[in-house]
Amino acid sequence: MNQTSPAPARGTLYLVPATLDFGVANPSPLQHVLPAQTLQVAAQLSHWVCENAKSTRAFLKRVHELYPLAVALQQQQMAELPHEVHKKGDHSGEFDARGLLSAALQGHDIGLISEAGMPAVADPGTSVVRAAHALGLKVVPLVGPVSLLLALAASGLSGQNFAFVGYLPQDAAARGQRIRELETLALQTGQTQLFIETPYRNAAMLDALLHALKPSTRLAISSGLTLSNAQIRSDLVSAWKQRPSPLDKHTPVVFCIGA
Amino acid sequence: MNQTSPAPARGTLYLVPATLDFGVANPSPLQHVLPAQTLQVAAQLSHWVCENAKSTRAFLKRVHELYPLAVALQQQQMAELPHEVHKKGDHSGEFDARGLLSAALQGHDIGLISEAGMPAVADPGTSVVRAAHALGLKVVPLVGPVSLLLALAASGLSGQNFAFVGYLPQDAAARGQRIRELETLALQTGQTQLFIETPYRNAAMLDALLHALKPSTRLAISSGLTLSNAQIRSDLVSAWKQRPSPLDKHTPVVFCIGA
Repeated sequence: MNQTSPAPARGTLYLVPATLDFGVANPSPLQHVLPAQTLQVAAQLSHWVCENAKSTRAFLKRVHELYPLAVALQQQQMAELPHEVHKKGDHSGEFDARGLLSAALQGHDIGLISEAGMPAVADPGTSVVRAAHALGLKVVPLVGPVSLLLALAASGLSGQNFAFVGYLPQDAAARGQRIRELETLALQTGQTQLFIETPYRNAAMLDALLHALKPSTRLAISSGLTLSNAQIRSDLVSAWKQRPSPLDKHTPVVFCIGA
Repeated sequence: MNQTSPAPARGTLYLVPATLDFGVANPSPLQHVLPAQTLQVAAQLSHWVCENAKSTRAFLKRVHELYPLAVALQQQQMAELPHEVHKKGDHSGEFDARGLLSAALQGHDIGLISEAGMPAVADPGTSVVRAAHALGLKVVPLVGPVSLLLALAASGLSGQNFAFVGYLPQDAAARGQRIRELETLALQTGQTQLFIETPYRNAAMLDALLHALKPSTRLAISSGLTLSNAQIRSDLVSAWKQRPSPLDKHTPVVFCIGA
């Protein structure tokens, strides 16, 4: 009578990349940017930790059209990342996400998904990955689109030494100073500098860049990558000034500067 | 008799990611890591700029099993990147690759491909992308696996601020100093630092890291991502020291350090 049942095998945490068409009116088919294995794993999962449950359900509806879901959408378990993570981010281990992974201790595989692209890269999710390691779960990143890397590859700037620095300050003076700091770093060390901006501030960011950067610095700007309206321009600042390209205020953009 | 034929429309430069199974005995099916669109575009192309023509042909043979090639393998035009690029890299615009893209001026689309992963990211190709922009060609990056980004997402370290710095110095003293520099940068700025090493030096690099890093620094090491023998460990340096994990000397590894 001293028997105890063996602990169930622990589930795996799958990092499930989403398409880059969040909020786009006519999205491309999922298989344009997601490999079959990513879609098949997503269709098998029944437990999710997500940035937003509504968009996760919309994503799974699209998956279901290609690979029928193993568990009906209504029965899927979805845990949203809490408000504090949405607001402050979870990139530095400040949020303990182990509680969101309790189903994995019961043997369920869990998918981590964000609104667009790879979870935990320029998006929430780091705390969940860290919690998975703390719990001894297997972590499996699946392949899908990552706008930063597509933008870097297409920029013509060094991909052997690069940094992504997130958002720049909003205050105009502080932003100008930060741009010059990043330019100095890029020119002195050869390290390409990537950053992003909230879409409605795209035009202001471009103005600030053309004002602050040296004419001989290279500026590459990508938007809508993987979508039918994708745009990439890589040019010297002097050429950007001669022939400006206005930026759409609704489309996420990746900015790259370098030598 | 004053007629001239109109210039042909210029071709597009497609950045075609390859699988991460270069040199692996039993590779997984391509569709595990490459979306249908990437495979379809690769099957339509007849002109390539590549790191190595032999591996490009081997890749296209695998594509052909899923999507028949529009032009037979024997008729495909392949231009290898020259020896100087293989040796010194082409990350800083030092090589003028416009001559490799002359077919695009005749209207042919061209694929840029490296041995593994995304061309121009921790791999040659930047000079070709830059040349495409100089010639006014459209540049389209296709989706596929990027080991650096998969490793970052799975590391549990910040993906909101990160840098990839390539290879560290080989000399032991210089390497130790560089490791401490990168650790200071990571701890002071919160910027995750990623780097790679030639596989046969993996064990020496791990020794150097465990010797140089503070016990409270986090070290994540990934190898074989997307393969059946994938390994990811993210732990404090103190835990790595208590329970060492030997690294295989044949498998490419991504090292990540941070807070």
